[in-house]
Amino acid sequence: MSLTRSVAEFISGTPRGSIPSSVRTLGTRSVLDGIGLALAGSVAASGQIVKGYLEDLGCAGPATAIGTALTTAPRFAAFANGIAIHADDYDDTQLATKPDRVYGLLTHPTAPVLPAVLAVAEENGASGADVLDAYLIGTEVEMKTAEAIDPRHYRDGFHSTGTFGAIGAAAAVSRLRRAAPSTTARALGIAASQSAGLRESFGTMTKPFHAGRAAESGVLAVDLALRGWTAAENILEAPRGFFQAAGGGYDASSIDGALGHPWSFDSPGVSIKPHPSGSLTHPGMRVMLRLIDEHDIKPDQVRRVRVGTNRNMPDALIHHRPRTELNAKFSMEFCMAILLLERRAGLPQFTDDVVRRADVQRLIERIDFGVDPEADAAGYEKMTTIVDVTLTDGRVLSGRADFGKGSPADPMTDVELEAKFRDCAAWGGVSDVDARRVAAMVWGIEDLRDIRQLTARLRATVPA
Amino acid sequence: MSLTRSVAEFISGTPRGSIPSSVRTLGTRSVLDGIGLALAGSVAASGQIVKGYLEDLGCAGPATAIGTALTTAPRFAAFANGIAIHADDYDDTQLATKPDRVYGLLTHPTAPVLPAVLAVAEENGASGADVLDAYLIGTEVEMKTAEAIDPRHYRDGFHSTGTFGAIGAAAAVSRLRRAAPSTTARALGIAASQSAGLRESFGTMTKPFHAGRAAESGVLAVDLALRGWTAAENILEAPRGFFQAAGGGYDASSIDGALGHPWSFDSPGVSIKPHPSGSLTHPGMRVMLRLIDEHDIKPDQVRRVRVGTNRNMPDALIHHRPRTELNAKFSMEFCMAILLLERRAGLPQFTDDVVRRADVQRLIERIDFGVDPEADAAGYEKMTTIVDVTLTDGRVLSGRADFGKGSPADPMTDVELEAKFRDCAAWGGVSDVDARRVAAMVWGIEDLRDIRQLTARLRATVPA
Repeated sequence: MSLTRSVAEFISGTPRGSIPSSVRTLGTRSVLDGIGLALAGSVAASGQIVKGYLEDLGCAGPATAIGTALTTAPRFAAFANGIAIHADDYDDTQLATKPDRVYGLLTHPTAPVLPAVLAVAEENGASGADVLDAYLIGTEVEMKTAEAIDPRHYRDGFHSTGTFGAIGAAAAVSRLRRAAPSTTARALGIAASQSAGLRESFGTMTKPFHAGRAAESGVLAVDLALRGWTAAENILEAPRGFFQAAGGGYDASSIDGALGHPWSFDSPGVSIKPHPSGSLTHPGMRVMLRLIDEHDIKPDQVRRVRVGTNRNMPDALIHHRPRTELNAKFSMEFCMAILLLERRAGLPQFTDDVVRRADVQRLIERIDFGVDPEADAAGYEKMTTIVDVTLTDGRVLSGRADFGKGSPADPMTDVELEAKFRDCAAWGGVSDVDARRVAAMVWGIEDLRDIRQLTARLRATVPA
Repeated sequence: MSLTRSVAEFISGTPRGSIPSSVRTLGTRSVLDGIGLALAGSVAASGQIVKGYLEDLGCAGPATAIGTALTTAPRFAAFANGIAIHADDYDDTQLATKPDRVYGLLTHPTAPVLPAVLAVAEENGASGADVLDAYLIGTEVEMKTAEAIDPRHYRDGFHSTGTFGAIGAAAAVSRLRRAAPSTTARALGIAASQSAGLRESFGTMTKPFHAGRAAESGVLAVDLALRGWTAAENILEAPRGFFQAAGGGYDASSIDGALGHPWSFDSPGVSIKPHPSGSLTHPGMRVMLRLIDEHDIKPDQVRRVRVGTNRNMPDALIHHRPRTELNAKFSMEFCMAILLLERRAGLPQFTDDVVRRADVQRLIERIDFGVDPEADAAGYEKMTTIVDVTLTDGRVLSGRADFGKGSPADPMTDVELEAKFRDCAAWGGVSDVDARRVAAMVWGIEDLRDIRQLTARLRATVPA
């Protein structure tokens, strides 16, 4: 059987009962996280532009642009919600399985897949359990294909959340719409012909655009395939197919026989971020928070901070003297400084006004960030970070972490996760009462007879 | 100035008066050809699916899906018309400028660009001269960027009509909407993040999908950029930008200082196809038609036909025993056989019924197609084809051509071009009276005060 066909058989043929309950639980957590992020992202600058654009486009439909009063055709709800989930760089992250895959190849699994599933489910009145199945199968295909491609793909500039996101979204929607394997294979072919996104646009609105566009492409691919649109049915492995064109090759063993064996949600697992900044900032932030807590460090006690990592991390965290929110998300210096000043780094801290505050900018000057040989030797599938805080009294406080809080090695508890969700919902203008109701509904997603019981609660009421 | 920025300055800053009249004339010919193909393609199987899909999507708007009664939002008219123009593999083709670019890197310039321009112009009531400017500037950017990328891009599987089509469409729409250079640079950034399409889907509906999706992506990119959407403004040349990700490199001299010096329409020029089949079939068809004409060859006089080319051509013309219309378009054997039988090869000849006819299938058995050392030595920027027809009386009739009829070396005359246009219009169900009126209007496109004078004539009347 061809590789693409075997993926299609996995998509349409995986029985619900074969998905371990641990995977269903982890998936439910990421779904809750994604919905909270969609609420928060709806008030980002990008969310405002998307809303105006879709209002002017005027495509009526039943699917909710989360956090707004707008409903539209499923493809556009998928587009808006994918952008919103990725807008704050606060969404979940796949882990690397091999040293040469580095952190960099990692896909943010939920942002392209969940919006496609929710939008189509809302149109079709699918059950919560069907939604969860489709989401889990779509993210599994997305992560396993992302692992398989030659790392050239990411290294030379493709943004895997955009590229594999389209494939994952098509997989998820194929499952939800009960497409036959041959239809699913064609949907994957159409999706791969929309697979796009370039890292050079990181730090701009086009980064979350990749996730939204991927979600939309998945919806469109399946819609066309179900109408009889033809496409290559061997798009992944073919000599002029996706892996060859976009990466120059791939490792078949990462997919063939590996889908669901184990599920990526189970191993290596998925990180959920406690802070709305690049995942590479998280190990350092974990160390710094621990030091602050243990030693009750006050900002004016700090003479200097030294943060050392492997060589790949300064290559991504490029903003040493950030002036904007989007810069700050990729600035180790800001992340350290804001923790010292406020002992937290959530959505209220990542704003242009806070980044430009005099005390923040002054403290940033005291942070040095660079490569540390010990951290570099730890291996590139880790994010090892070493922090040394030199105090004005001469003491040096030190710590080290390989991963951040929220990673599978140190996951957020359900209580912490729901607190993040409520923060995100509040940021998006949702009352805490409503947020708790939505959270309860998502924790019990498998009991929902019709997903519209949930999605109806994700709409903003039109102001009277 | 960065490369992307210099492209943006060319797009917004090229004065109408600096575009040579020869280029305007050649562009007008391709516009006429493209509109005829959109009419023909509207009745293809893909056109029927697109129409049903867009009707169900229900996005109201002023832009015409050519050949149908449907009007919709500009992005969807661009999508439908891009698919229609490419549906029959009958649209114009860029020529190669360097031996290592081979035929294979060549972009079909009109299919992704013209639909984007027409759809937006129809919404804005742009003049015919503005439409022609935008079309010429968009195709120039498309062809020069396609020439620049490392040939790995095409060789490993990307379909340049889809990938560079998105960039060309964004360029054209930026010009038409008078976007400032920095806005245009961002639009190119957004377009490059949608640049996609894989050759493995050649011979399926996903091939024309690439052209339609590229046209739509260009419209969306400019719409978002004008609303303030942010993106990298150096997407072409950046270390993690488009050329590096999608090709592994590029030749800056193909763009920098080369845009409009000369215009690609002038040199190396653009081929317009006399037959609805792969451009590589055209040199052989030219030779065969000449031999039939000179020697009045009847099919039952033919013992064997030998067709020899360079090694790249059998790699693309892969269908030796075709059974379907789409196979036949990439079958040298069918193209030879149908010319011997009918002395023509137009839209009526490329149908499943004709391909499967017993006399056609019998004659196909007498055609041998393969590599010829002399043709191979002629160079890969040529399509050299050598034909030897052995007759039952023992005579051997031979001929050779480097390019087909319709190439810049042997262009179709305006009369031949208009005849092709009228055939295409008739195929799409347009009366010859109406077709002649549309042709007259396109020949005089620069005199149209408002493009809607033309586009209103491209709509099918709703059946009473």
